[in-house]
Amino acid sequence: MRIIGIDPGTAICGYGIIDVKGSKLTPVAYGAITTPKELTDSQRLEILFNDLSDILEEYKPDKFGVEELFFNRNVTTAIKVGQARGVILLAAEQQQIPLYEYTPLQIKQAVTGYGKADKNQVIYMTMNILGIREKIKPDDTADALAVAICTAHSSHQDRLMRLVK
Amino acid sequence: MRIIGIDPGTAICGYGIIDVKGSKLTPVAYGAITTPKELTDSQRLEILFNDLSDILEEYKPDKFGVEELFFNRNVTTAIKVGQARGVILLAAEQQQIPLYEYTPLQIKQAVTGYGKADKNQVIYMTMNILGIREKIKPDDTADALAVAICTAHSSHQDRLMRLVK
Repeated sequence: MRIIGIDPGTAICGYGIIDVKGSKLTPVAYGAITTPKELTDSQRLEILFNDLSDILEEYKPDKFGVEELFFNRNVTTAIKVGQARGVILLAAEQQQIPLYEYTPLQIKQAVTGYGKADKNQVIYMTMNILGIREKIKPDDTADALAVAICTAHSSHQDRLMRLVK
Repeated sequence: MRIIGIDPGTAICGYGIIDVKGSKLTPVAYGAITTPKELTDSQRLEILFNDLSDILEEYKPDKFGVEELFFNRNVTTAIKVGQARGVILLAAEQQQIPLYEYTPLQIKQAVTGYGKADKNQVIYMTMNILGIREKIKPDDTADALAVAICTAHSSHQDRLMRLVK
């Protein structure tokens, strides 16, 4: 099974694709879609949508994981990230890839076993689980891979639950 | 010149299309795209995107007006409306329709001449300017037509400014 994880954003949108065989997770491709800040919102959203659609067509993931957004900060930021999230969800829906959403707590828990782990612990464990040696850059890419691991982990649990029943 | 105005939303997205000849504004088509609340966010965003894209292809507006979002209320609402706005901007960009954004203040000012006009005054003046007799429903549709009027008004001013220069 192939899984893509996404860390939404208009300026930088991280993506991470992994393959899952049993309990083994292997990185397939990862990186970040970036859009120039000189462009308008709508131009940047179109680049994000097109690039992500191309990635989905190329790698054909079976599951699509994305972080649920929680903001207690700036409402303007929330709208901007919401706009990016809108075209990201549209890209997944157009290619009929089942969508899974996780809270930051669930993602940290899945990757480090600890819901209050800090950013560096999450990156360290993500690299460790996937056997990636060179530092993953930018952080958005590492976050996207963490979402993919969380999605894989949850699928595994679903399967175990079905076996138990 | 043909103008479409949009009042963004996932549950209800108002649209209003008007033709502009000199100072005369004529309504062409208006209504609301609605999406069933039983569906997932991504399914609703796809319906919104597809329906709006169809409307743009059918009516081929020359300008696309949309309200800038300001929220002091719920951040969760801001993300939801942001998501809708994301696919709306994408639809405009894909069909290369120039995009214009206005604050609620600018829209009220353009339609009623008064930035603090209430909702009913805006609806009343919108119907009056466009010669629409039957009550426009839902309010989102009236708001979208008000955005279209504001876009027409601003274009007219741009032209006058150029003539003066």
